[in-house]
Amino acid sequence: MSELHSVGSLPRRDAGPRSGVGDTAEGGTLRVSSHRLLDRIDSLASVGAIDGTRGCSRLALTDEDRRGRDLVVRWMRELGLAVRVDGVGNVIATMPWPDQSPPVLTGSHIDTVATGGRYDGCLGVVAGLEVIETVIAAGTTLARPLAVGFFTGEEGARFAPDMLGSLVYCGDMALDDALAITGIDGAILGDELDRIGYRGPAPTPGPVPHAFVELHIEQGPVLERENRVIGAVTGVQGISWTEVTVEGESNHAGTTPMRMRRDPMVVAARLVAFVHDLAHELPGQVGTSGRIEVHPNLINVVPARAVLTVDLRNADGDILRQAEELVEAHVGHLSNEFGVRISTRPLARFDPVEFDPAIIELVERIATRNGLRSLRMASGAGHDAQMMARVVKSGMIFVPSHRGLSHNPHEHTEAEHVVAGANVLLDVMVALGTEA
Amino acid sequence: MSELHSVGSLPRRDAGPRSGVGDTAEGGTLRVSSHRLLDRIDSLASVGAIDGTRGCSRLALTDEDRRGRDLVVRWMRELGLAVRVDGVGNVIATMPWPDQSPPVLTGSHIDTVATGGRYDGCLGVVAGLEVIETVIAAGTTLARPLAVGFFTGEEGARFAPDMLGSLVYCGDMALDDALAITGIDGAILGDELDRIGYRGPAPTPGPVPHAFVELHIEQGPVLERENRVIGAVTGVQGISWTEVTVEGESNHAGTTPMRMRRDPMVVAARLVAFVHDLAHELPGQVGTSGRIEVHPNLINVVPARAVLTVDLRNADGDILRQAEELVEAHVGHLSNEFGVRISTRPLARFDPVEFDPAIIELVERIATRNGLRSLRMASGAGHDAQMMARVVKSGMIFVPSHRGLSHNPHEHTEAEHVVAGANVLLDVMVALGTEA
Repeated sequence: MSELHSVGSLPRRDAGPRSGVGDTAEGGTLRVSSHRLLDRIDSLASVGAIDGTRGCSRLALTDEDRRGRDLVVRWMRELGLAVRVDGVGNVIATMPWPDQSPPVLTGSHIDTVATGGRYDGCLGVVAGLEVIETVIAAGTTLARPLAVGFFTGEEGARFAPDMLGSLVYCGDMALDDALAITGIDGAILGDELDRIGYRGPAPTPGPVPHAFVELHIEQGPVLERENRVIGAVTGVQGISWTEVTVEGESNHAGTTPMRMRRDPMVVAARLVAFVHDLAHELPGQVGTSGRIEVHPNLINVVPARAVLTVDLRNADGDILRQAEELVEAHVGHLSNEFGVRISTRPLARFDPVEFDPAIIELVERIATRNGLRSLRMASGAGHDAQMMARVVKSGMIFVPSHRGLSHNPHEHTEAEHVVAGANVLLDVMVALGTEA
Repeated sequence: MSELHSVGSLPRRDAGPRSGVGDTAEGGTLRVSSHRLLDRIDSLASVGAIDGTRGCSRLALTDEDRRGRDLVVRWMRELGLAVRVDGVGNVIATMPWPDQSPPVLTGSHIDTVATGGRYDGCLGVVAGLEVIETVIAAGTTLARPLAVGFFTGEEGARFAPDMLGSLVYCGDMALDDALAITGIDGAILGDELDRIGYRGPAPTPGPVPHAFVELHIEQGPVLERENRVIGAVTGVQGISWTEVTVEGESNHAGTTPMRMRRDPMVVAARLVAFVHDLAHELPGQVGTSGRIEVHPNLINVVPARAVLTVDLRNADGDILRQAEELVEAHVGHLSNEFGVRISTRPLARFDPVEFDPAIIELVERIATRNGLRSLRMASGAGHDAQMMARVVKSGMIFVPSHRGLSHNPHEHTEAEHVVAGANVLLDVMVALGTEA
């Protein structure tokens, strides 16, 4: 247990005219500066901005990513934080503190997909900075430091897998394996880290914080359609990705009687429908076939081959496994019924993640105290917090995504929701920073 | 009605040592020379041969097509036939005859798809030549001349539509329209005709023959699987091709609850299955979805759009229309059920063609007389005979395709079936050539 410190007594740098100007809250509670927060989101979005849109493109470890990193690290240093860069380029900035007390860590990522929005990841990092700046300015008394970080290559858009930085941070991927990964453009991850100057000296796995909490846009439509502002994220859905290859017999579409066909397109269609129907039958089940390739793909030829993907998700590990088994059984059934050969290739498999119940409850309670309608919900997308949850009590806060759009330059979250989310993060971090 | 002539009295050229050597038939009936027939099929297949295969590539009006044409025209002239080339490059060679009696015309095409076999089209042309040579050698007495031809661009693989030459011949496409068609390589049909020297002086539409009969490989598996040698073709299935575009909403496959989706992949799958099931429910109905394109086609994204094709065929025009109506109704139903926008674009529509009942019966009778098991069947593929059927009594004779393969270098028909088909053609043409 750490000694209590008033962080207001720590040395502070001048971060310009915006510094320390928090919004006025009713009842005298801490409030982030909405102006400063939104300003920084815009500034970060200007790095790698996609012409004529509000989106940005900062694939991991490119020059754009380096410029985004440099900007955020400058903000970290301006706040007087101790910046730690590890061997895979994760950056963690911690309030100066007289001992080695594990901090309450927040953060996310600042890499984007090629057609990224300005909130995905960046919101969590910028809001974390804002929380720390607000706490420092207010001189709030804490039992442990606060810290904010960004993890390398969360998107997986240049270097697979996704959530790579947090995977290395929590010790589930060896540093050397990560450094050797080849990107979609042929670049080696370690070389790119060196090139942009972000292969740091800090060891991995990284130190375990007191807790981890991540603010993120929902990237789905639920909060908006349910008219809620805050998602108290209960966990992350488990994911099962499979590629299914159906091989039949290519035939002339006019001359081959129906009973003599072995048509992989028909089998693929049955499977797509089965996956969709299954998701309506099992509680909390989500199922998608997003990709199909047919060969030779001609109007008047019964195809020889269809390759499609099955994406199954569930927050409940048992139901996810049941869904996988039902799909597998149906594949066998289709193979027999249509005389086709079906092979399956697992592409990815993650068990569901459950966040810390106390943090879920804390988020919910603080949202209510702030007059915000909240919703307990599982995340459908992957996040760094699910990796951190392997080593420390963790949680997430969601704010609405307009029309559920993400990975898209039109990605948008209302300013008032951005600010509301940052204030919930502030209160959660202070609570975690002062708890016994 | 024409005067009877003994064709043996006509002037004959020396066509080499093979000339006039027919096979011996029991009972003294006419028989083609199997050696000469197979030899010519091989010779024609050497033009545009695909390296290392038995197939050939002679896209319409290319240099390869020109060389194939030159070879066949040389054979026509060696037989002393009068060669007529019309404005779209159709070539018809007729026995010399003292008056203008309409001939019994046979023929097909010698253009191929890019990965063609050696029998598709060529068999009908070479067998027609062989029939005429056999008749001339035997001095058979006829009431009217025999003629053999090949039509331009039957495959449609370079210049759409398919069966273009016979379409112009029968007057259902204007010559100028045909000459202006642009090929897949950007070439203009009329220019290519000039380039290879096959824009002839004969007018189109062409003269109406006494009858038209075409020998062709089945291009399907039915005769082989039913263990029959001769198909007495009753007609050509009607064809209805439609492109269906389903527009939904692209969403994250993890974060978008099932009930909030408008998933075009699922709708496309339902339609593919409906088309397949429908073909099992309506008599003689064939249905295929051979092509699908999905956008953005990513494993973890509910697609925005799916474009697929529906190919419906039936030899019965009423049932084909019923199938089209049922598909259209189902499209409307799917659009409502899944909240997607569906648009349809007709790509092609041909009514079924019925061949002349007397010719169908004649083919059947002659097959039986020749000791060959025959089957009445509709053609699933399009043929020049279906265009000729618009202007004159017409029919077709099918011989088996091994494994139903066609448009493929592995296309194969047993030599004995090739010869059997040519002998049925011979007897049918003599019967039509001597009828009152």
